[in-house]
Amino acid sequence: MSTARDLPHPEPADFQLTQVLFALSDPARLSIVQGLVDGPQEVAACQPVGGELPKSTLSHHLKTLREAGVVRSTPHGRQRHLELRRADLEGRFPGLLDAVLDAAPDPRPSDTPAR
Amino acid sequence: MSTARDLPHPEPADFQLTQVLFALSDPARLSIVQGLVDGPQEVAACQPVGGELPKSTLSHHLKTLREAGVVRSTPHGRQRHLELRRADLEGRFPGLLDAVLDAAPDPRPSDTPAR
Repeated sequence: MSTARDLPHPEPADFQLTQVLFALSDPARLSIVQGLVDGPQEVAACQPVGGELPKSTLSHHLKTLREAGVVRSTPHGRQRHLELRRADLEGRFPGLLDAVLDAAPDPRPSDTPAR
Repeated sequence: MSTARDLPHPEPADFQLTQVLFALSDPARLSIVQGLVDGPQEVAACQPVGGELPKSTLSHHLKTLREAGVVRSTPHGRQRHLELRRADLEGRFPGLLDAVLDAAPDPRPSDTPAR
């Protein structure tokens, strides 16, 4: 059953390459994605390494990632879980996410401004 | 000798992953890059497939691509040549450009707005 807490997620066939690249093109968003490589996290724990973002900024980043198809956000009790849609991305754009993750720098120091 | 017509280009060591992803995240810029895969072009001929951009818009896109390290713009007589920095990108971010090019859609119809 769909509820108000279910957020829209694109099907892999509807992923847009440029939208995915844009979602990954921000240091804070890329850092959040790097933090999901080892498994899902509670949304409340998803922050870029090196600096806490204001809640509204974080929400905006997570929306950009979700709408591009990079992450899935699902209700989990009173929390939400965020997971990387690794298989969906790999199926649609083979090699892309791995190339980005391989190229991604170690987390930046906290004084690096987010774009 | 450096002249006023030489534009600045980053060294591969200074390429920023997020800047490259951002440069490739616009449909018009991605289409320009696709047009350079088979070899350099005169800048005057570099337009996204499907629609001519105003000169100022094109210049802005080419600057974004050049400053990210994606393309090199060199004087060539009265014209400028634009080439894809494929080897430099491959050396710095292995597999990334190929994954993007493999995933890139065929050129869009002319009624698709550029971002």
